[in-house]
Amino acid sequence: MIKDLMFDNKTISSLKQIVGSENLITDKEGVYAYTFDCSHTQSAYNKPVMVVFPENTKQVSDIVKFAAENNLPVIPRGAGTNHAGGCMPLRGGIILHFSKMNKILDINPGDLTCRVQPGVVVGDLQKEVEKFGLYYPPDQSNLAVSTVGGGIALSSGGPRTFKYGSVKDYVIDLEIVTADGEILHTGANTAKNVTGLNLTQLIVGSEGTLAIVTEALMRLIPKPEFKNVLLVYYDRLDDAVNSVTAILQHHLLPAVVDIIDRKTINTIEDFMPTGLLCDKEAALLIEIDGDRASVEYQQEKVIALCNENSAAHIVCAKNEEEQERIWTSRRSAFAACAKLAPNVITEDVVVPRSKIYELAKGIERLSEKYGIITLIMGHIGDGNIHPNFALDLRDSDVRIRFEKLKKELFELAVSLGGTLSGEHGIGCQKSQYLNLVLSENTFGLMKKIKTVFDPKNIMNPGKFL
Amino acid sequence: MIKDLMFDNKTISSLKQIVGSENLITDKEGVYAYTFDCSHTQSAYNKPVMVVFPENTKQVSDIVKFAAENNLPVIPRGAGTNHAGGCMPLRGGIILHFSKMNKILDINPGDLTCRVQPGVVVGDLQKEVEKFGLYYPPDQSNLAVSTVGGGIALSSGGPRTFKYGSVKDYVIDLEIVTADGEILHTGANTAKNVTGLNLTQLIVGSEGTLAIVTEALMRLIPKPEFKNVLLVYYDRLDDAVNSVTAILQHHLLPAVVDIIDRKTINTIEDFMPTGLLCDKEAALLIEIDGDRASVEYQQEKVIALCNENSAAHIVCAKNEEEQERIWTSRRSAFAACAKLAPNVITEDVVVPRSKIYELAKGIERLSEKYGIITLIMGHIGDGNIHPNFALDLRDSDVRIRFEKLKKELFELAVSLGGTLSGEHGIGCQKSQYLNLVLSENTFGLMKKIKTVFDPKNIMNPGKFL
Repeated sequence: MIKDLMFDNKTISSLKQIVGSENLITDKEGVYAYTFDCSHTQSAYNKPVMVVFPENTKQVSDIVKFAAENNLPVIPRGAGTNHAGGCMPLRGGIILHFSKMNKILDINPGDLTCRVQPGVVVGDLQKEVEKFGLYYPPDQSNLAVSTVGGGIALSSGGPRTFKYGSVKDYVIDLEIVTADGEILHTGANTAKNVTGLNLTQLIVGSEGTLAIVTEALMRLIPKPEFKNVLLVYYDRLDDAVNSVTAILQHHLLPAVVDIIDRKTINTIEDFMPTGLLCDKEAALLIEIDGDRASVEYQQEKVIALCNENSAAHIVCAKNEEEQERIWTSRRSAFAACAKLAPNVITEDVVVPRSKIYELAKGIERLSEKYGIITLIMGHIGDGNIHPNFALDLRDSDVRIRFEKLKKELFELAVSLGGTLSGEHGIGCQKSQYLNLVLSENTFGLMKKIKTVFDPKNIMNPGKFL
Repeated sequence: MIKDLMFDNKTISSLKQIVGSENLITDKEGVYAYTFDCSHTQSAYNKPVMVVFPENTKQVSDIVKFAAENNLPVIPRGAGTNHAGGCMPLRGGIILHFSKMNKILDINPGDLTCRVQPGVVVGDLQKEVEKFGLYYPPDQSNLAVSTVGGGIALSSGGPRTFKYGSVKDYVIDLEIVTADGEILHTGANTAKNVTGLNLTQLIVGSEGTLAIVTEALMRLIPKPEFKNVLLVYYDRLDDAVNSVTAILQHHLLPAVVDIIDRKTINTIEDFMPTGLLCDKEAALLIEIDGDRASVEYQQEKVIALCNENSAAHIVCAKNEEEQERIWTSRRSAFAACAKLAPNVITEDVVVPRSKIYELAKGIERLSEKYGIITLIMGHIGDGNIHPNFALDLRDSDVRIRFEKLKKELFELAVSLGGTLSGEHGIGCQKSQYLNLVLSENTFGLMKKIKTVFDPKNIMNPGKFL
């Protein structure tokens, strides 16, 4: 059986010639770890899989050319933290692991840009550009592992999307390898560019289904001089929501307006006690940035508005250490959930901002109805909630209930005018729900564009497209 | 001759049935005015042209269905202020004029969005959303005439792109009519959305070559509380450039950093005297916005940095009236040029920001070499210059010299790592230069995507795609 699912020697030796024998894994045991991502999709493939670690664009091009000649799928992979099954080698093939294409090639303070390989870890990039007084705002939360390439595949944004937008707003140009192995550029070296169709944005968020990104020119901004973080507790969820509305109506634009509910607060505090107030219904994490005068001014106004909207308690970080403590709590939510049950599944739904209360309440109802522990957290300023479900997927009854819950979750988001994913993508996990939001004609156009890029369907096949 | 170029009665009566007899122009004299745009492309078409004024999406759909059945081009048109010949009905056909689809359908302060028809004038939209404390930053300069639809066609940005991005950063969802007359949506109602390919951004900037936009859901932001405007004069261009670099290096992010050169200063002052300093080599127009504390703080730092970089004189607006006066000067540059020669042609090239000095100096050289009056103005913070050429196009010698100048201008921009257009698009005027920046493979992909959307090539044909 293991033998059956291994590539033949001829294929292996061809790939060795391209990447060198140290840069591939072909044995079933070695490959196994790469046949998962963070989505809890079952590892399942009925054709051979191998993992290669290309070191440059030429190698990627040669790999894809070989794959095209032999009708083999190619599956790009960063840190494998995808929540929608986007990294799964469902039809076998060659996993292109970008851990060896992880260089920051250039940081250009004059042009406010950086040029990076897809395997660069987002947190590393942020630290490096900050040395030049620059800022790369997209924040995939798991900063220590997630890669820029993964962010491009999903147009990830994270908490700072509210003020700063998501990855798509920072990609100026991409070097891509197309399905026939050609290397080309999608954009220009300039932030402003209306020279032909916007192929760059067609690739961003396409989850590896059109082409493979081998290099990216990213826009940077000057780093805000100061920031501060508030943690604002509420006895009622709707007071939290109303506070956000009030903040916006008063011309304020915090960098982050995240929310965590009571279950999340308690789970985090159990996991890593820092004195969170566990009797509160919800808390807003608000980050304000700008120059010092502005941060002080905004902070004062935000606090006043939260108080006007019945905030129960406000923690205002007094220094960077306290800021970091609040952020660490927020970031540890996913890990904390892992103590609740054998599996944690993070979902991603998004609605128009004014519908966030209905969405949160609806999620609570679904959680009760299906008896699945659900923690609500997310980017309330963007209408984007990531419910975290703690459950035991070994239990087939739980699995069935969870599938029903998910379906109703997506139907709920859509009924509120929202959609299936704000930043985690569709992958293989959500493709069955696409018809909830895309008309046949719209999806048909996407399919035809897919065929233009990838007539043999070798680019990350079995996913949404 | 006139008769030859008119549509037959059957065609005219079919269109009358769709839009009503009051909503079309079919006689050659009436049509003539619509066969130009701002690009000075000669009105030339060898097939009949008519102008229709649809009132709703259904009519647009019916028009396109009729056009598809009869293989007639359809050319969408807003205010006709395109500088690259994008509105020209070069192959005859039906001009869809959007002046009757000019409604703001909804402004939603809770969701920070507005829903608009393509014919809405940008300046009107800005005023309306500001009543709700909201802000639509893209500024096509000619605010009183340019339409949102035109902005979408070109992803226009104008001066505030530096801080706020261009139209592409504000379009959430588009309702489009495809080349077979189908009506579909490209995105979702949410600012964050990774649900399928980003068709929205494929349409933005496609200059009407893929589909016709009939409605747009736009993202808005809270309106900054305050702003102020500085006009900073320099005796040397490089001091102006160095000031901008210094501003960025000090974490400051003004909303606008525009430049005008000595010729522009003098031309504006001749046209509309407001006391501009005509002996200076260049001036920066810097707009700072934010809350009051921040504006004061930034302004102080910007002034200090400009002084450190040898600013010759700084005018700091003391009130809104003075702000408006500075802006009116800047905005009147194009009109002022019209006094210099029978024709004014505005070009649009963009380079990485650090190359702006070389670009400006190169443009000066080309102006001298070809003996064509050239005024340099533009969005220096974005590396985007709009040279304005004042010339007499009736003189065939001038025309020849100007064509040579243009070719060298684009070659210059490309040699500096830049590209052909930051916000005016390619239209029919620049398509011959696309090979300077797009590889055969990249252009080939665009062509294939065009074929997916528009197999009969009826959508604004004869343009860049």
